[in-house]
Amino acid sequence: MGEWREISGGVTAARGYRAAGIKAGLKPSGLPDLALIVSDVDAIAAGVFTTSQVKAACVEYDRQLLQTKHIARAILCNAGQANAATGEQGMKDAQASAVAIAHELNITPDLVLLASTGVIGQRIKIDALTSALPQLVAELSETGSDAAARAIITTDLVTKSIALETNIGDRPVRIGGIAKGSGMIHPNMATMLAFVTCDAAVSPSLWQQMLTKAADKSFNSITVDGDTSTNDSLIALANGQSRTPAITEMGPEAENLTEMLTEVCQYLAKAIARDGEGATCLIEVRVTGAQNELAARQIAKTIAGSSLVKAAIFGRDPNWGRIAAAAGRAGVTFEQENLKIQLGDFLLFAQGQPLAFDKAAASAYLKQAAGYSFPEGFTATDNSNDLSGDRTKIAPQRLNNPVLIYVSVGNGPGTGKAWGCDLSYDYVKINAEYTT
Amino acid sequence: MGEWREISGGVTAARGYRAAGIKAGLKPSGLPDLALIVSDVDAIAAGVFTTSQVKAACVEYDRQLLQTKHIARAILCNAGQANAATGEQGMKDAQASAVAIAHELNITPDLVLLASTGVIGQRIKIDALTSALPQLVAELSETGSDAAARAIITTDLVTKSIALETNIGDRPVRIGGIAKGSGMIHPNMATMLAFVTCDAAVSPSLWQQMLTKAADKSFNSITVDGDTSTNDSLIALANGQSRTPAITEMGPEAENLTEMLTEVCQYLAKAIARDGEGATCLIEVRVTGAQNELAARQIAKTIAGSSLVKAAIFGRDPNWGRIAAAAGRAGVTFEQENLKIQLGDFLLFAQGQPLAFDKAAASAYLKQAAGYSFPEGFTATDNSNDLSGDRTKIAPQRLNNPVLIYVSVGNGPGTGKAWGCDLSYDYVKINAEYTT
Repeated sequence: MGEWREISGGVTAARGYRAAGIKAGLKPSGLPDLALIVSDVDAIAAGVFTTSQVKAACVEYDRQLLQTKHIARAILCNAGQANAATGEQGMKDAQASAVAIAHELNITPDLVLLASTGVIGQRIKIDALTSALPQLVAELSETGSDAAARAIITTDLVTKSIALETNIGDRPVRIGGIAKGSGMIHPNMATMLAFVTCDAAVSPSLWQQMLTKAADKSFNSITVDGDTSTNDSLIALANGQSRTPAITEMGPEAENLTEMLTEVCQYLAKAIARDGEGATCLIEVRVTGAQNELAARQIAKTIAGSSLVKAAIFGRDPNWGRIAAAAGRAGVTFEQENLKIQLGDFLLFAQGQPLAFDKAAASAYLKQAAGYSFPEGFTATDNSNDLSGDRTKIAPQRLNNPVLIYVSVGNGPGTGKAWGCDLSYDYVKINAEYTT
Repeated sequence: MGEWREISGGVTAARGYRAAGIKAGLKPSGLPDLALIVSDVDAIAAGVFTTSQVKAACVEYDRQLLQTKHIARAILCNAGQANAATGEQGMKDAQASAVAIAHELNITPDLVLLASTGVIGQRIKIDALTSALPQLVAELSETGSDAAARAIITTDLVTKSIALETNIGDRPVRIGGIAKGSGMIHPNMATMLAFVTCDAAVSPSLWQQMLTKAADKSFNSITVDGDTSTNDSLIALANGQSRTPAITEMGPEAENLTEMLTEVCQYLAKAIARDGEGATCLIEVRVTGAQNELAARQIAKTIAGSSLVKAAIFGRDPNWGRIAAAAGRAGVTFEQENLKIQLGDFLLFAQGQPLAFDKAAASAYLKQAAGYSFPEGFTATDNSNDLSGDRTKIAPQRLNNPVLIYVSVGNGPGTGKAWGCDLSYDYVKINAEYTT
């Protein structure tokens, strides 16, 4: 296990980063909608993007850039228009926005990475965006992470931010991140964006490798409704400003950094799952005894993503049958005599057979997990499809009291976790009552 | 395209079959819960079963039987207890029920196939079942299909039954079927059971091959919430009582029979999707231009199964963005410039870009698909988790007016269809408000 401590500062906690978030008039609501993260020096850049065949222009743009070049200075993110399914014009808009911010920052456009979130099929309002860039750059600051976190959200109920610090030798090394996402494509909104900054010095291929590993154990292990977005992007920068020795191969220091990166990504991923539309609780599924990690995660994710499991947990029903059924259809071979299911402290099923348990107590356990209450004036049903509601009150993120589901499928070494949220009336309400 | 006509009679439409359905006291409600289908002579038997790693005892029993022997005389089905996740005792109960009905029918137990549906983790009430067998056998009749169809349902709102007839030479050949399922595992209820009878003479391997093909294009192409049950079973008998020449290899007659079998299975599968919990309409997705049939079906099924697409259709929102996003994440490669999406008569998206369309008219198209209204005294929200509600009024199945979604992904030869239903408040209500 790595050793680290939580610090404040989000993406500006690491040395050599500034950020800003402003109102550029992209969202109909007039709320903040344009964010910028800048590294003072060239940073090693890595990315993980949506696997969808229908990709936003910014995703195509970033992928092309990162294929040939592993260095970036800036990440520009707009909220309001996804710039997905916008054809050739969408790519032209993406390129134009990169050129414009590069000009403002006095860098070359190939050092700019892009992200967009908003309505699919809508182009970026490029004039409004361009006009706002001087102010955006003027507001860049070493305490700008919160403003940036605020400007990238769309239907999120809370902002998502974290920073951790460890030591390499006697010098501190920091990783911070911000994210947006209600865990799924909301009425044409992009699912999830996450931006991570690090001040360690890491070689490009190793940094990409670390990020891919961290993403598998975090963003790729959350599920709200199984829908993958056109715009999903995770971008991570490492700029070496910690002045620690360069990490160029795996070893204790690389492993520690990977673990801290994974922790940052997991925190943000859990925050997205917890903020799933209509969700009343966070669900964490821990699978052990599988043949390998991949198999364990696959089972965990299938359980966390089962509509029936999710609806049962919303109903505070300790329904082991649905958990067993979801495990069984995960596409992973196991002997059902080896299946064991535990909910919190309650062992419900072992050796292929149901056990007697205190149902009232198990249901009470589920009830305590739903202790999430919103501040006055801000409710879970406050959903503004047009992004125009009063979204100025942002509740703090709460990841305590998850519902814990433990599943063992045998004696194998593979363990894995996945996170999700329950399925409530509000999920259907939010996703059905959007009228075009 | 094969030629056939619809006839009445369900599983007793084909020659040489009798069926019965009675109240055996297995369901807490006291409603019919035990069904029997018998062929007068040995029938060729084929089966397709759940792919879940957690299988009911009856599924294990049938699979073992069909591995060595391709002949059966009877199908015994109980509703109320799934006999899944019941360990060794579950298998003993299954064997005991086969022995008991075989004794009653004066046949050997290895000619009996079994099916169960109901609460996972509950054993069959074997004494009640055994006591009811003499009455069940006494009630066997050539008009007993409806009674059997009534006795296999659990939370279904309607019974599902169909029979078709074609000619081989100048003699009629018939295939009939009954099914149960609300398209998913309801509060621990098994998803779907379907029993098909045919009076053609077909060789065992060919009959299994036909059934597998038909299942892929029907039951394996429906989705309500992605949950697969522990008890899913499709069993088909062919007893040769049509007195038509034996079909032993593929050719025009075999193809015609396969098509008619597929049509029977598709009707039953659509009926299950339409009866999805809380559903207000049937959704049919037709994909063309894929590389092959499998890829096309995969895309169709991903769209039909997307929670976001389903919620949009419940909200009567012509939301092409969600359809595009679902197509993109189906795991099938295509160029997004080739993507075309049409909803009913409305072309929404072509060449990778959204088109202008009459949104009010498209929404009106979706509204007409929801014209399903239940008879007085019987509503869609009448859901009896304990199977004890007044479920005596069974509404007729209506498969007219599906919502049609056409998606083209290129110029390939692959076409495929899938069916689903919309996602409504009632789905969550039904699946959350079950308390153990």
